[in-house]
Amino acid sequence: MRKAKVAIQDTFWKEYSELVRQTVIPYQWEALNDRIEGAEPSYAIRNFRIAAGLEKGEFGGWVFQDSDLYKWLEAVAYSISNQPDPKLESIADEVIDLIGQAQHENGYVNTYFTIKEPGRQWTNLYEAHELYCAGHMIEAAVAYYHATGKRIFLDIACRFADLIDSLFGTEQGKIQAYCGHQEIELALIKLYNVTGEQRYLNLSSYFINERGNKPSYFVEEWERRGRKNNWSQGTPNLEVYQSHLPVREQTVAVGHSVRAVYMYTAMADLARLTNDSSLREACERLWINTTRKQMYITGGIGATHLGEAFTFDYDLPNDTVYAETCASIGLIFWARRMLQLEAKSDYADVMERALYNNVLGSMSKDGQHFFYVNPLEVYPDASEKNPDKHHVKPVRQKWFGCSCCPPNVARLLSSLHDYIYDISNDGKTVYVHLFIGSELQWVTGDGLQVTVHQRSELPWHGKVEFSISLAGNDAKAAPFEIAVRIPQWFQSQDPILKINGEPQHYRKHNGYAKMERAWSDGDTVEWILPLETQLIAAHPLIRPDAGKAAIQRGPLVYCLEQVDNGSPLSSLSFAEEPELREHETPELLGGCITVEVDGLLVDESVWLDNQPYKPLHKNVKPVQLTAIPYYLWGNRQAGEMNVWLRT
Amino acid sequence: MRKAKVAIQDTFWKEYSELVRQTVIPYQWEALNDRIEGAEPSYAIRNFRIAAGLEKGEFGGWVFQDSDLYKWLEAVAYSISNQPDPKLESIADEVIDLIGQAQHENGYVNTYFTIKEPGRQWTNLYEAHELYCAGHMIEAAVAYYHATGKRIFLDIACRFADLIDSLFGTEQGKIQAYCGHQEIELALIKLYNVTGEQRYLNLSSYFINERGNKPSYFVEEWERRGRKNNWSQGTPNLEVYQSHLPVREQTVAVGHSVRAVYMYTAMADLARLTNDSSLREACERLWINTTRKQMYITGGIGATHLGEAFTFDYDLPNDTVYAETCASIGLIFWARRMLQLEAKSDYADVMERALYNNVLGSMSKDGQHFFYVNPLEVYPDASEKNPDKHHVKPVRQKWFGCSCCPPNVARLLSSLHDYIYDISNDGKTVYVHLFIGSELQWVTGDGLQVTVHQRSELPWHGKVEFSISLAGNDAKAAPFEIAVRIPQWFQSQDPILKINGEPQHYRKHNGYAKMERAWSDGDTVEWILPLETQLIAAHPLIRPDAGKAAIQRGPLVYCLEQVDNGSPLSSLSFAEEPELREHETPELLGGCITVEVDGLLVDESVWLDNQPYKPLHKNVKPVQLTAIPYYLWGNRQAGEMNVWLRT
Repeated sequence: MRKAKVAIQDTFWKEYSELVRQTVIPYQWEALNDRIEGAEPSYAIRNFRIAAGLEKGEFGGWVFQDSDLYKWLEAVAYSISNQPDPKLESIADEVIDLIGQAQHENGYVNTYFTIKEPGRQWTNLYEAHELYCAGHMIEAAVAYYHATGKRIFLDIACRFADLIDSLFGTEQGKIQAYCGHQEIELALIKLYNVTGEQRYLNLSSYFINERGNKPSYFVEEWERRGRKNNWSQGTPNLEVYQSHLPVREQTVAVGHSVRAVYMYTAMADLARLTNDSSLREACERLWINTTRKQMYITGGIGATHLGEAFTFDYDLPNDTVYAETCASIGLIFWARRMLQLEAKSDYADVMERALYNNVLGSMSKDGQHFFYVNPLEVYPDASEKNPDKHHVKPVRQKWFGCSCCPPNVARLLSSLHDYIYDISNDGKTVYVHLFIGSELQWVTGDGLQVTVHQRSELPWHGKVEFSISLAGNDAKAAPFEIAVRIPQWFQSQDPILKINGEPQHYRKHNGYAKMERAWSDGDTVEWILPLETQLIAAHPLIRPDAGKAAIQRGPLVYCLEQVDNGSPLSSLSFAEEPELREHETPELLGGCITVEVDGLLVDESVWLDNQPYKPLHKNVKPVQLTAIPYYLWGNRQAGEMNVWLRT
Repeated sequence: MRKAKVAIQDTFWKEYSELVRQTVIPYQWEALNDRIEGAEPSYAIRNFRIAAGLEKGEFGGWVFQDSDLYKWLEAVAYSISNQPDPKLESIADEVIDLIGQAQHENGYVNTYFTIKEPGRQWTNLYEAHELYCAGHMIEAAVAYYHATGKRIFLDIACRFADLIDSLFGTEQGKIQAYCGHQEIELALIKLYNVTGEQRYLNLSSYFINERGNKPSYFVEEWERRGRKNNWSQGTPNLEVYQSHLPVREQTVAVGHSVRAVYMYTAMADLARLTNDSSLREACERLWINTTRKQMYITGGIGATHLGEAFTFDYDLPNDTVYAETCASIGLIFWARRMLQLEAKSDYADVMERALYNNVLGSMSKDGQHFFYVNPLEVYPDASEKNPDKHHVKPVRQKWFGCSCCPPNVARLLSSLHDYIYDISNDGKTVYVHLFIGSELQWVTGDGLQVTVHQRSELPWHGKVEFSISLAGNDAKAAPFEIAVRIPQWFQSQDPILKINGEPQHYRKHNGYAKMERAWSDGDTVEWILPLETQLIAAHPLIRPDAGKAAIQRGPLVYCLEQVDNGSPLSSLSFAEEPELREHETPELLGGCITVEVDGLLVDESVWLDNQPYKPLHKNVKPVQLTAIPYYLWGNRQAGEMNVWLRT
């Protein structure tokens, strides 16, 4: 893919990048420093200070606590590249200095092993997340280098990566193994991209190719540890760690869902960079399985909290769901890489679905509260009183002991500019994957610098406009192709294309509308998406959704909340062929479009005698239902929430 | 209650008592001796042989393993009292002899502490089930004495009870505590009934009255153990053990459901025997909560496998359900005692519901396979592949490591004669609670011996007939009252009463039809129950059943199985006002009545492209559904099963 420069200029998304900049990043800095009252302490900064010898104390938090700091630094990097912030940058510089002080002579950095188990490095790859943390350090360092041009963090990361490269591999004397939590694989590709050092790409390939070989390293290591684990019980569960089979033989998404999608992300990158068709086929197979059979309508993945894992095809319970925020973020990473492998709108459709629903919904409007688990059905009493649902929180939390999700949201939302466009290698085609107002600049195959301005009214209205600027070029026209995604929102009519105000037919390819011409300065493209509000049904094999429907409008899935519709929500259903009416409600939740629907309510009066079971009688009465965008749920008061409602 | 003699003579139930006698009891004997291939070993007999010094070895199984043997012996006692079996009795005598050999000088019997933790007796009342095992020994010993007249086992039990009485109580030097698993409380009342020894009643009262007092004994004991438990983690969970509050202050059923109903059983007995109105009020309050708000339509209780526990009002998920067999058996015990407190049909209705559905369904037709968990919705793939549902087995198991349920079923089914009738203390009223063909004999208040024969066509047909015999009396007529239960099956008409063939009006009181007269030899009473097949709805606050209905016919709840209706069952729904047609199917599952219903099936053809979500379209086609009695499910092949179906 050819390089391009993208700056977001979008009402809807600017609010989020500003929230990340002004609130999420400062808030999370306080959290990393254990200064949020009433929140679980992070210990992350403190661990680094202890590891650097600046403070005395015990290691705190999870074994992978370092990664929270790295993800925060990555978010900071994106944020200051979007909008310079010298004060924030100087905080980041100080922290990077601290990381440098915690780095060992040989390049090793990990506060857990430095403080708590010195000398035991690399003895528990199955559980201890050393390479995982290294991966997050590398991602942050690469982002920080891109943002600031400063090399210090990148050098720290390279030293660590070089150490890892010297330790792992098939050669005599090396550890022939890989990490229990995939992450470094995708990070090493970023490091390769920025440094051009082939050895980082090779190391990433090595980790991917080694994974799942027999005999299993994890089992051998466990034998060496005297058949003991530190954080889990029993024999290593290879499936949970996607190490049950070589990756090319994996056909269905299994195990811990964040691990899975981080791995698939690296696989897609490697398939492209090394032109590896068997790896590409594995990616395509796993993509179909994941997104067709194991994905919630909100773009959430992972059906059970036990192992934070996939279960099996079509098993998508709404109330005992996991749908971890990080897993949807990883799904977005993966979709992004699949788009680079092949520009097919399906990948962007999923990316958009996960972004506008599961991921956006994981953060509160105030940017200070987060969901780890993103349910499609919530009943607060059950979350509190039924232990099978304790993991399903009805209210976003301030911070988590295992706080992987909040900084992951921050780094995604502050790097969204990387998800909107692709320019083909020859510079001749620009793909528009997402409809996010922005300015795109690149140099075409003919060496012309082109600027495209996208203005988008999404998600509320369907009008998207592109204007082409050739300012600064001598040439009067630039020949290239614009490929605009045709979203799969199941609308009853195709989007309308106008060029310079004139309606145009367009060629469809892989879900993109393609228009090739010699573009002149000032040319405009209008892309008018019909935003119909629709009732959506789930595949009949998704048993929990049988007989139910969800509301979707454009990319947004809707839900019903108790505050608008009363309780129990299960007493409500859609009326026969209900009318769906859209309402602009600028006063609600920062402004949104709600959907009013004809519904039916079970009349409870016949149950006043408190009998639990009685002969069935028709006892419904008409009622108006109000649905709000799913991503806005839980921003008013704790209560029931449902995405799927009986028809 | 006045004593009576009851012998079951009933086609439907005889099959079960014969199954218990010929199969369940011999099979479980093999299981207790670890001779069932492919089943988890019991170790129960082996533990007693080791404790008795006859064998060397380690203790095997759970800390409460002894109780399996005691429950089996109790079942044997009931069985041989129904039908003498000298060979079985001699096996029982030998085992009782073995128990005697394992008894310590001071009366103590417990193989776990004898083998594994000698000297640590009574140091872990919270977890170690010593008094629980003692309770099951007492129950078995009382039953065996009733069945055989032999005192040896009763003497063993009395010696142990006397030891316990000398150790526990409020007096100086005694342990002021109670068992983590209630059971001995109800057992001591049986021991009091058979021996007339007031101290056993007092000891039972003591355990009940002590429970839940502050400071908590369990917490103090845990402190003494260095804040450690052997089988669980963290501080003692007082609610799970119903020791969070004094029993009279408990208002809702909480915690481990078997513990709860065993305790309520003893409370109801004590309320009656000690005329304790506050205890009675607590029982009535807990009864209403349990049966109105925390009971499945099958009579199952316990909504979560975590702690095998109640959760909260109206929380009755069908697929992650617990509904343990033992819990429904305990509910039957409790209902039985509530009937003795006050003859109200509500108690018998619940008893009947739990018996004909949850309990009967827990055992396979062959008497050799059992459910521990009795789900209302089963999808075998989910049981296998979603860890949230691993506890929900789609196929009955041969035996369990924790095998409390199978012998509990055996002892209930072989003692069913105790659940059919009550005679008032004055001998003047005979209550008919259950419609099970049987012969009842008692002596009226006037000293006349009366025999009543009940012939019942239940559960398949509604005709019940009673004939009165005064044979052996000089008197020509016996004045007494017959009170026959009016079942709450929500039928559209009242049962018809005929005396000597003549239709009669009848007085209703507390859900019983009462007929008082001077009965002559040969008088007959016909009690004709309308057995309508009906669709039943659940209270709207039972969210998982919203928009659904279940089929019930008389006492039997029905279900749909995949073998009759295809898969997925979730694609099926009831048609609008469906016709429910009954079919006698003598060839099916030993003969039963199935119900054919007009249904609708989702047409899956529009989903052939494997999209997970699409706009909702009406795509149902008419189909015939076949429902079988719930208690017969899982006797053909593994597959889906649903009790609740969409309407």
